[in-house]
Amino acid sequence: MRVKLILTYDGTDFSGWQVQPQKRTVQQTVEDCIFELTKERVRVTASGRTDAGVHAIAQVAHFDTCASIPPKKFKEALNIILPPDVKVVESVGVEEGFDARRDAKKKTYAYHLYQNRAELPLKNRYSVRVTPNLDIKKMQSACKIFMGEHDFKCFLASGSSVLSSIRTVYNLEVIDCGEDLTVRVTGNGFLYNMVRIIVGTLIKVGRGDLDENDLVKMLKTGDRSMGGKTVPARGLVLESVVYD
Amino acid sequence: MRVKLILTYDGTDFSGWQVQPQKRTVQQTVEDCIFELTKERVRVTASGRTDAGVHAIAQVAHFDTCASIPPKKFKEALNIILPPDVKVVESVGVEEGFDARRDAKKKTYAYHLYQNRAELPLKNRYSVRVTPNLDIKKMQSACKIFMGEHDFKCFLASGSSVLSSIRTVYNLEVIDCGEDLTVRVTGNGFLYNMVRIIVGTLIKVGRGDLDENDLVKMLKTGDRSMGGKTVPARGLVLESVVYD
Repeated sequence: MRVKLILTYDGTDFSGWQVQPQKRTVQQTVEDCIFELTKERVRVTASGRTDAGVHAIAQVAHFDTCASIPPKKFKEALNIILPPDVKVVESVGVEEGFDARRDAKKKTYAYHLYQNRAELPLKNRYSVRVTPNLDIKKMQSACKIFMGEHDFKCFLASGSSVLSSIRTVYNLEVIDCGEDLTVRVTGNGFLYNMVRIIVGTLIKVGRGDLDENDLVKMLKTGDRSMGGKTVPARGLVLESVVYD
Repeated sequence: MRVKLILTYDGTDFSGWQVQPQKRTVQQTVEDCIFELTKERVRVTASGRTDAGVHAIAQVAHFDTCASIPPKKFKEALNIILPPDVKVVESVGVEEGFDARRDAKKKTYAYHLYQNRAELPLKNRYSVRVTPNLDIKKMQSACKIFMGEHDFKCFLASGSSVLSSIRTVYNLEVIDCGEDLTVRVTGNGFLYNMVRIIVGTLIKVGRGDLDENDLVKMLKTGDRSMGGKTVPARGLVLESVVYD
Protein backbone atom coordinates (compact mmCIF):
# COMPACT_ATOMS: atom_id res chain seq x y z
CA MET A 1 0.00 0.00 0.00
CA ARG A 2 1.29 3.44 -0.95
CA VAL A 3 0.64 6.33 1.42
CA LYS A 4 0.88 10.02 0.52
CA LEU A 5 1.86 12.39 3.34
CA ILE A 6 1.56 16.15 3.50
CA LEU A 7 4.22 17.32 5.93
CA THR A 8 4.89 20.66 7.61
CA TYR A 9 8.17 21.46 9.33
CA ASP A 10 10.23 24.18 10.90
CA GLY A 11 13.55 23.69 9.10
CA THR A 12 15.64 25.60 11.66
CA ASP A 13 17.03 22.55 13.44
CA PHE A 14 17.15 20.19 10.43
CA SER A 15 20.03 19.69 8.00
CA GLY A 16 17.46 19.75 5.21
CA TRP A 17 15.21 17.01 3.88
CA GLN A 18 17.62 14.37 2.69
CA VAL A 19 19.14 11.63 4.83
CA GLN A 20 22.82 12.32 5.60
CA PRO A 21 25.10 10.44 7.96
CA GLN A 22 25.30 11.97 11.48
CA LYS A 23 22.84 14.73 10.60
CA ARG A 24 19.29 15.36 11.79
CA THR A 25 17.18 15.49 8.63
CA VAL A 26 13.42 15.57 8.01
CA GLN A 27 13.51 12.40 5.88
CA GLN A 28 15.40 10.44 8.56
CA THR A 29 13.10 11.71 11.30
CA VAL A 30 9.95 10.71 9.43
CA GLU A 31 11.40 7.32 8.42
CA ASP A 32 12.42 6.62 12.03
CA CYS A 33 8.90 7.43 13.27
CA ILE A 34 7.34 5.17 10.62
CA PHE A 35 9.69 2.43 11.82
CA GLU A 36 8.63 3.01 15.41
CA LEU A 37 5.02 2.65 14.33
CA THR A 38 5.20 -0.22 11.82
CA LYS A 39 8.61 -1.87 12.47
CA GLU A 40 9.21 -1.45 8.73
CA ARG A 41 12.28 0.30 7.34
CA VAL A 42 10.74 2.37 4.55
CA ARG A 43 12.04 5.01 2.19
CA VAL A 44 10.04 8.25 2.22
CA THR A 45 10.27 10.12 -1.10
CA ALA A 46 9.48 13.84 -1.12
CA SER A 47 8.48 16.11 -4.01
CA GLY A 48 12.02 17.43 -3.78
CA ARG A 49 14.70 18.06 -1.19
CA THR A 50 14.56 21.20 0.86
CA ASP A 51 17.89 22.61 1.98
CA ALA A 52 19.12 22.99 5.54
CA GLY A 53 17.05 25.62 7.32
CA VAL A 54 14.25 25.78 4.73
CA HIS A 55 10.71 25.36 6.11
CA ALA A 56 7.63 23.67 4.66
CA ILE A 57 3.93 24.32 5.11
CA ALA A 58 2.98 21.47 2.78
CA GLN A 59 5.79 19.21 1.56
CA VAL A 60 4.39 16.13 -0.22
CA ALA A 61 5.96 12.68 0.16
CA HIS A 62 5.07 9.02 -0.30
CA PHE A 63 6.12 5.63 1.10
CA ASP A 64 5.07 2.00 0.81
CA THR A 65 3.93 -0.07 3.74
CA CYS A 66 2.47 -3.48 4.48
CA ALA A 67 1.18 -2.30 7.87
CA SER A 68 -2.49 -2.80 8.58
CA ILE A 69 -2.89 0.84 9.68
CA PRO A 70 -5.48 2.60 7.48
CA PRO A 71 -3.71 5.36 5.46
CA LYS A 72 -5.77 8.15 7.03
CA LYS A 73 -4.72 6.98 10.51
CA PHE A 74 -1.02 7.56 9.83
CA LYS A 75 -1.56 11.28 10.45
CA GLU A 76 -2.64 10.91 14.08
CA ALA A 77 -0.38 7.97 14.81
CA LEU A 78 2.75 9.67 13.44
CA ASN A 79 1.92 13.04 15.01
CA ILE A 80 2.06 11.46 18.45
CA ILE A 81 5.64 10.28 17.96
CA LEU A 82 7.05 12.95 15.64
CA PRO A 83 9.06 15.74 17.32
CA PRO A 84 7.45 19.20 17.67
CA ASP A 85 9.18 20.61 14.57
CA VAL A 86 7.71 18.21 11.99
CA LYS A 87 4.09 17.13 11.73
CA VAL A 88 1.75 15.38 9.27
CA VAL A 89 -1.03 17.61 7.91
CA GLU A 90 -2.67 14.83 5.93
CA SER A 91 -2.17 11.15 5.14
CA VAL A 92 -4.08 9.36 2.42
CA GLY A 93 -3.84 6.15 0.42
CA VAL A 94 -2.81 6.55 -3.22
CA GLU A 95 -2.39 4.33 -6.27
CA GLU A 96 0.88 2.41 -6.52
CA GLY A 97 1.74 4.54 -9.54
CA PHE A 98 1.81 7.82 -7.60
CA ASP A 99 5.29 9.29 -7.16
CA ALA A 100 5.60 12.41 -5.01
CA ARG A 101 8.74 13.48 -6.83
CA ARG A 102 8.17 12.50 -10.45
CA ASP A 103 4.48 13.52 -10.59
CA ALA A 104 4.87 16.97 -9.00
CA LYS A 105 3.66 19.49 -11.58
CA LYS A 106 4.01 22.81 -9.78
CA LYS A 107 5.62 24.03 -6.59
CA THR A 108 5.11 27.30 -4.77
CA TYR A 109 7.74 28.80 -2.51
CA ALA A 110 7.48 32.00 -0.47
CA TYR A 111 10.44 34.02 0.73
CA HIS A 112 9.86 36.39 3.65
CA LEU A 113 11.76 39.65 4.12
CA TYR A 114 11.29 42.57 6.51
CA GLN A 115 12.50 46.09 6.01
CA ASN A 116 14.19 47.56 9.06
CA ARG A 117 17.45 49.25 10.09
CA ALA A 118 17.80 46.83 13.02
CA GLU A 119 17.46 43.09 13.45
CA LEU A 120 14.08 42.19 14.98
CA PRO A 121 14.29 39.01 17.11
CA LEU A 122 10.60 38.19 16.65
CA LYS A 123 10.91 38.28 12.84
CA ASN A 124 14.34 36.73 12.40
CA ARG A 125 13.35 33.11 12.75
CA TYR A 126 11.25 33.01 9.59
CA SER A 127 12.29 36.09 7.65
CA VAL A 128 15.36 38.04 6.69
CA ARG A 129 16.08 41.72 7.25
CA VAL A 130 16.76 44.12 4.38
CA THR A 131 17.59 47.80 4.70
CA PRO A 132 14.44 49.83 3.99
CA ASN A 133 15.71 51.48 0.82
CA LEU A 134 14.13 49.15 -1.75
CA ASP A 135 12.15 50.37 -4.73
CA ILE A 136 9.36 47.81 -4.46
CA LYS A 137 7.69 48.94 -7.69
CA LYS A 138 10.90 48.20 -9.62
CA MET A 139 11.12 44.75 -8.02
CA GLN A 140 7.49 44.03 -8.90
CA SER A 141 7.99 45.13 -12.48
CA ALA A 142 11.16 43.04 -12.85
CA CYS A 143 9.29 39.85 -11.93
CA LYS A 144 7.84 39.57 -15.43
CA ILE A 145 11.32 39.05 -16.91
CA PHE A 146 11.63 35.70 -15.13
CA MET A 147 8.13 34.45 -15.89
CA GLY A 148 7.67 31.80 -18.57
CA GLU A 149 10.04 29.12 -19.84
CA HIS A 150 13.72 30.06 -19.66
CA ASP A 151 17.13 28.53 -19.32
CA PHE A 152 17.88 29.55 -15.72
CA LYS A 153 21.59 28.66 -15.94
CA CYS A 154 22.33 32.13 -14.51
CA PHE A 155 20.66 31.03 -11.25
CA LEU A 156 22.52 27.77 -10.99
CA ALA A 157 24.53 27.70 -7.78
CA SER A 158 28.19 27.31 -8.69
CA GLY A 159 29.32 23.70 -8.62
CA SER A 160 25.91 22.16 -9.23
CA SER A 161 25.25 19.99 -12.26
CA VAL A 162 21.87 19.20 -13.77
CA LEU A 163 20.79 17.63 -17.06
CA SER A 164 18.88 20.75 -18.04
CA SER A 165 18.53 24.16 -16.48
CA ILE A 166 15.35 24.96 -18.42
CA ARG A 167 12.41 25.62 -16.09
CA THR A 168 9.04 27.33 -16.33
CA VAL A 169 8.10 30.02 -13.83
CA TYR A 170 4.31 30.33 -13.85
CA ASN A 171 4.18 33.19 -11.42
CA LEU A 172 6.59 35.44 -9.54
CA GLU A 173 5.41 38.33 -7.39
CA VAL A 174 6.61 40.68 -4.69
CA ILE A 175 3.87 41.30 -2.13
CA ASP A 176 4.24 44.54 -0.23
CA CYS A 177 2.79 44.43 3.31
CA GLY A 178 4.42 47.56 4.72
CA GLU A 179 7.45 46.48 6.74
CA ASP A 180 7.04 42.88 5.52
CA LEU A 181 7.76 41.76 1.97
CA THR A 182 6.98 38.35 0.51
CA VAL A 183 8.41 37.04 -2.75
CA ARG A 184 6.20 34.19 -3.95
CA VAL A 185 7.14 32.00 -6.91
CA THR A 186 5.38 29.11 -8.63
CA GLY A 187 7.20 26.95 -11.15
CA ASN A 188 7.38 23.45 -12.59
CA GLY A 189 10.61 22.94 -10.69
CA PHE A 190 13.56 24.90 -9.37
CA LEU A 191 17.31 24.50 -9.66
CA TYR A 192 19.37 24.19 -6.48
CA ASN A 193 19.23 27.59 -4.68
CA MET A 194 17.32 29.09 -7.63
CA VAL A 195 14.59 30.69 -5.50
CA ARG A 196 17.11 32.16 -3.07
CA ILE A 197 19.19 33.58 -5.93
CA ILE A 198 16.07 35.05 -7.61
CA VAL A 199 15.24 36.82 -4.32
CA GLY A 200 18.81 38.09 -3.97
CA THR A 201 18.65 39.37 -7.54
CA LEU A 202 15.30 41.12 -6.99
CA ILE A 203 16.81 42.84 -3.92
CA LYS A 204 19.64 44.09 -6.16
CA VAL A 205 16.99 45.47 -8.53
CA GLY A 206 15.22 47.14 -5.57
CA ARG A 207 18.48 48.82 -4.58
CA GLY A 208 18.99 50.11 -8.11
CA ASP A 209 22.11 47.97 -8.70
CA LEU A 210 20.49 46.03 -11.56
CA ASP A 211 17.78 46.99 -14.05
CA GLU A 212 15.46 44.99 -16.27
CA ASN A 213 17.92 45.04 -19.17
CA ASP A 214 20.53 43.46 -16.92
CA LEU A 215 18.09 40.68 -16.03
CA VAL A 216 17.37 39.99 -19.71
CA LYS A 217 21.13 39.83 -20.29
CA MET A 218 21.61 37.49 -17.32
CA LEU A 219 19.05 35.06 -18.71
CA LYS A 220 20.57 35.26 -22.18
CA THR A 221 24.22 34.84 -21.19
CA GLY A 222 23.65 32.54 -18.19
CA ASP A 223 26.13 34.62 -16.21
CA ARG A 224 25.72 33.81 -12.48
CA SER A 225 28.07 36.60 -11.44
CA MET A 226 25.62 39.35 -12.41
CA GLY A 227 22.88 38.19 -10.04
CA GLY A 228 22.37 38.86 -6.37
CA LYS A 229 23.56 36.88 -3.37
CA THR A 230 21.97 33.62 -2.31
CA VAL A 231 19.77 34.88 0.54
CA PRO A 232 19.64 32.85 3.81
CA ALA A 233 17.60 29.65 4.01
CA ARG A 234 15.48 30.67 7.00
CA GLY A 235 13.30 33.07 4.95
CA LEU A 236 12.23 30.31 2.56
CA VAL A 237 9.16 28.12 2.90
CA LEU A 238 7.76 25.49 0.55
CA GLU A 239 4.07 26.41 0.52
CA SER A 240 2.50 23.84 -1.80
CA VAL A 241 3.06 21.13 -4.40
CA VAL A 242 0.48 20.55 -7.10
CA TYR A 243 -0.22 17.20 -8.82
CA ASP A 244 -2.57 16.42 -11.69
CA MET B 1 21.96 60.97 32.39
CA ARG B 2 18.82 58.85 32.14
CA VAL B 3 18.32 56.79 28.98
CA LYS B 4 15.03 55.30 27.83
CA LEU B 5 15.25 52.08 25.81
CA ILE B 6 12.60 50.42 23.69
CA LEU B 7 13.47 46.73 23.60
CA THR B 8 12.18 43.82 21.52
CA TYR B 9 12.83 40.22 22.43
CA ASP B 10 11.96 36.64 21.65
CA GLY B 11 11.15 35.33 25.11
CA THR B 12 11.55 31.64 24.23
CA ASP B 13 15.02 31.22 25.71
CA PHE B 14 14.69 33.73 28.56
CA SER B 15 13.46 33.04 32.09
CA GLY B 16 11.46 36.25 31.82
CA TRP B 17 12.52 39.86 32.38
CA GLN B 18 13.67 39.94 35.97
CA VAL B 19 17.17 39.09 37.18
CA GLN B 20 17.25 35.70 38.93
CA PRO B 21 20.29 33.76 40.12
CA GLN B 22 21.59 31.16 37.61
CA LYS B 23 18.93 32.09 35.05
CA ARG B 24 19.18 33.81 31.66
CA THR B 25 16.90 36.83 31.88
CA VAL B 26 16.35 39.83 29.61
CA GLN B 27 17.21 42.31 32.36
CA GLN B 28 20.49 40.55 33.16
CA THR B 29 21.41 40.29 29.48
CA VAL B 30 20.80 44.00 28.84
CA GLU B 31 22.60 45.04 32.03
CA ASP B 32 25.60 42.86 31.11
CA CYS B 33 25.78 44.44 27.65
CA ILE B 34 25.59 47.96 29.11
CA PHE B 35 28.45 46.96 31.41
CA GLU B 36 30.48 45.70 28.47
CA LEU B 37 29.90 49.04 26.76
CA THR B 38 30.28 51.51 29.65
CA LYS B 39 32.01 49.49 32.42
CA GLU B 40 29.17 50.66 34.65
CA ARG B 41 27.01 48.26 36.66
CA VAL B 42 23.57 49.78 36.11
CA ARG B 43 20.05 48.70 37.00
CA VAL B 44 17.67 48.62 34.02
CA THR B 45 14.05 49.18 35.07
CA ALA B 46 11.29 48.00 32.72
CA SER B 47 7.65 49.06 32.50
CA GLY B 48 6.92 45.73 34.13
CA ARG B 49 8.26 42.19 34.26
CA THR B 50 7.37 39.81 31.52
CA ASP B 51 7.18 36.15 32.51
CA ALA B 52 9.36 33.33 31.22
CA GLY B 53 8.60 32.73 27.55
CA VAL B 54 6.67 35.97 26.97
CA HIS B 55 7.83 38.07 24.01
CA ALA B 56 8.02 41.83 23.51
CA ILE B 57 7.77 44.01 20.44
CA ALA B 58 8.26 47.20 22.45
CA GLN B 59 9.12 46.83 26.12
CA VAL B 60 10.15 50.18 27.63
CA ALA B 61 12.96 50.49 30.17
CA HIS B 62 15.29 53.12 31.63
CA PHE B 63 18.71 53.27 33.22
CA ASP B 64 21.16 55.91 34.45
CA THR B 65 24.65 56.31 33.09
CA CYS B 66 27.62 58.63 33.37
CA ALA B 67 29.04 57.37 30.07
CA SER B 68 29.81 59.93 27.41
CA ILE B 69 27.90 57.97 24.77
CA PRO B 70 25.06 60.09 23.34
CA PRO B 71 21.70 58.45 24.28
CA LYS B 72 20.69 57.87 20.68
CA LYS B 73 23.94 55.94 20.06
CA PHE B 74 23.14 53.31 22.69
CA LYS B 75 20.83 51.64 20.15
CA GLU B 76 23.54 50.82 17.62
CA ALA B 77 26.24 50.20 20.20
CA LEU B 78 24.15 47.78 22.25
CA ASN B 79 22.74 46.02 19.19
CA ILE B 80 26.24 44.99 18.18
CA ILE B 81 26.84 43.17 21.47
CA LEU B 82 23.33 42.00 22.39
CA PRO B 83 22.49 38.37 21.48
CA PRO B 84 20.15 37.74 18.51
CA ASP B 85 17.05 37.32 20.69
CA VAL B 86 17.02 40.80 22.25
CA LYS B 87 17.55 44.10 20.45
CA VAL B 88 17.10 47.83 21.04
CA VAL B 89 14.49 49.44 18.79
CA GLU B 90 15.13 52.94 20.12
CA SER B 91 17.30 54.72 22.68
CA VAL B 92 16.71 58.29 23.73
CA GLY B 93 17.69 60.64 26.55
CA VAL B 94 14.92 61.48 29.03
CA GLU B 95 14.49 63.72 32.07
CA GLU B 96 15.79 62.36 35.36
CA GLY B 97 12.17 62.20 36.56
CA PHE B 98 11.10 59.65 33.95
CA ASP B 99 10.42 56.19 35.35
CA ALA B 100 9.61 53.40 32.87
CA ARG B 101 7.65 51.51 35.50
CA ARG B 102 5.88 54.17 37.53
CA ASP B 103 4.97 56.41 34.60
CA ALA B 104 3.54 53.70 32.31
CA LYS B 105 -0.08 54.68 31.68
CA LYS B 106 -1.27 51.94 29.31
CA LYS B 107 0.04 48.63 28.09
CA THR B 108 -1.12 46.56 25.15
CA TYR B 109 -0.61 42.82 24.99
CA ALA B 110 -1.57 40.49 22.14
CA TYR B 111 -2.16 36.78 22.51
CA HIS B 112 -1.92 34.64 19.37
CA LEU B 113 -3.94 31.47 18.82
CA TYR B 114 -4.45 29.27 15.78
CA GLN B 115 -7.34 26.92 15.15
CA ASN B 116 -6.31 23.50 13.93
CA ARG B 117 -6.77 19.82 14.78
CA ALA B 118 -3.00 19.27 14.59
CA GLU B 119 0.03 21.10 15.94
CA LEU B 120 1.67 23.25 13.26
CA PRO B 121 5.44 23.57 13.80
CA LEU B 122 5.65 26.88 11.94
CA LYS B 123 3.00 28.47 14.18
CA ASN B 124 3.88 26.91 17.51
CA ARG B 125 6.75 29.20 18.42
CA TYR B 126 4.64 32.32 18.75
CA SER B 127 1.09 31.05 19.00
CA VAL B 128 -0.93 28.35 20.66
CA ARG B 129 -3.23 25.80 19.05
CA VAL B 130 -6.92 25.56 19.90
CA THR B 131 -9.38 23.02 18.51
CA PRO B 132 -11.42 24.72 15.76
CA ASN B 133 -14.74 24.55 17.57
CA LEU B 134 -14.83 28.06 19.00
CA ASP B 135 -17.79 30.39 18.67
CA ILE B 136 -15.80 33.53 17.88
CA LYS B 137 -18.86 35.79 17.94
CA LYS B 138 -19.58 34.74 21.53
CA MET B 139 -15.95 35.43 22.50
CA GLN B 140 -16.12 38.84 20.84
CA SER B 141 -19.34 39.71 22.60
CA ALA B 142 -18.00 38.57 25.99
CA CYS B 143 -15.07 41.00 25.77
CA LYS B 144 -17.29 43.92 26.82
CA ILE B 145 -17.84 42.34 30.26
CA PHE B 146 -14.18 42.85 31.13
CA MET B 147 -13.85 46.37 29.76
CA GLY B 148 -13.77 49.26 32.20
CA GLU B 149 -12.62 49.45 35.81
CA HIS B 150 -13.12 46.24 37.77
CA ASP B 151 -11.69 44.31 40.66
CA PHE B 152 -9.97 41.51 38.74
CA LYS B 153 -9.40 39.33 41.81
CA CYS B 154 -10.93 36.45 39.86
CA PHE B 155 -7.93 36.58 37.48
CA LEU B 156 -5.36 36.67 40.20
CA ALA B 157 -3.07 33.67 39.87
CA SER B 158 -3.34 31.64 43.06
CA GLY B 159 -0.66 32.47 45.58
CA SER B 160 0.01 36.01 44.35
CA SER B 161 -0.49 39.01 46.58
CA VAL B 162 -0.99 42.59 45.46
CA LEU B 163 -2.12 45.72 47.25
CA SER B 164 -5.09 46.12 44.98
CA SER B 165 -6.53 43.99 42.21
CA ILE B 166 -8.50 46.88 40.70
CA ARG B 167 -7.44 47.56 37.11
CA THR B 168 -8.93 49.31 34.10
CA VAL B 169 -9.21 47.49 30.79
CA TYR B 170 -9.53 50.13 28.07
CA ASN B 171 -9.99 47.68 25.26
CA LEU B 172 -10.28 43.93 24.77
CA GLU B 173 -10.94 42.37 21.39
CA VAL B 174 -10.80 39.03 19.59
CA ILE B 175 -9.57 39.49 16.03
CA ASP B 176 -10.65 36.74 13.66
CA CYS B 177 -8.18 36.12 10.80
CA GLY B 178 -9.45 32.75 9.61
CA GLU B 179 -7.22 30.09 11.11
CA ASP B 180 -5.45 32.70 13.25
CA LEU B 181 -7.04 34.44 16.22
CA THR B 182 -5.56 37.34 18.15
CA VAL B 183 -6.79 38.53 21.54
CA ARG B 184 -5.57 42.09 22.09
CA VAL B 185 -5.97 43.88 25.40
CA THR B 186 -5.06 47.37 26.54
CA GLY B 187 -5.15 48.29 30.20
CA ASN B 188 -3.59 50.55 32.82
CA GLY B 189 -1.83 47.51 34.22
CA PHE B 190 -2.31 43.79 34.59
CA LEU B 191 -2.14 41.39 37.51
CA TYR B 192 0.29 38.46 37.34
CA ASN B 193 -0.98 36.07 34.62
CA MET B 194 -4.13 38.18 34.16
CA VAL B 195 -3.91 38.37 30.37
CA ARG B 196 -3.26 34.65 30.05
CA ILE B 197 -6.21 33.85 32.33
CA ILE B 198 -8.49 36.25 30.39
CA VAL B 199 -7.56 34.41 27.18
CA GLY B 200 -8.18 31.01 28.78
CA THR B 201 -11.55 32.26 30.02
CA LEU B 202 -12.53 33.61 26.57
CA ILE B 203 -11.65 30.19 25.10
CA LYS B 204 -14.03 28.61 27.63
CA VAL B 205 -16.72 31.05 26.43
CA GLY B 206 -15.96 30.11 22.80
CA ARG B 207 -16.44 26.42 23.67
CA GLY B 208 -19.78 27.17 25.31
CA ASP B 209 -18.55 26.21 28.80
CA LEU B 210 -19.13 29.71 30.19
CA ASP B 211 -21.57 32.45 29.24
CA GLU B 212 -21.66 36.19 29.84
CA ASN B 213 -23.63 35.79 33.07
CA ASP B 214 -20.89 33.53 34.40
CA LEU B 215 -18.31 36.20 33.61
CA VAL B 216 -20.31 38.84 35.45
CA LYS B 217 -20.53 36.48 38.40
CA MET B 218 -16.77 35.78 38.26
CA LEU B 219 -16.00 39.49 38.45
CA LYS B 220 -18.48 39.97 41.30
CA THR B 221 -17.42 37.04 43.44
CA GLY B 222 -13.72 37.09 42.54
CA ASP B 223 -13.83 33.32 42.15
CA ARG B 224 -10.71 32.19 40.25
CA SER B 225 -11.98 28.62 39.92
CA MET B 226 -14.73 29.57 37.43
CA GLY B 227 -12.31 30.97 34.84
CA GLY B 228 -10.30 29.23 32.16
CA LYS B 229 -6.80 27.82 32.32
CA THR B 230 -3.72 30.03 32.24
CA VAL B 231 -2.73 29.66 28.57
CA PRO B 232 0.98 29.11 27.69
CA ALA B 233 3.41 32.03 27.74
CA ARG B 234 4.67 31.62 24.17
CA GLY B 235 1.47 33.07 22.63
CA LEU B 236 1.82 36.34 24.55
CA VAL B 237 3.60 39.45 23.33
CA LEU B 238 3.90 42.88 24.94
CA GLU B 239 3.13 45.16 22.01
CA SER B 240 3.39 48.65 23.44
CA VAL B 241 3.61 50.79 26.55
CA VAL B 242 2.14 54.29 26.53
CA TYR B 243 3.39 57.25 28.63
CA ASP B 244 1.96 60.74 28.98
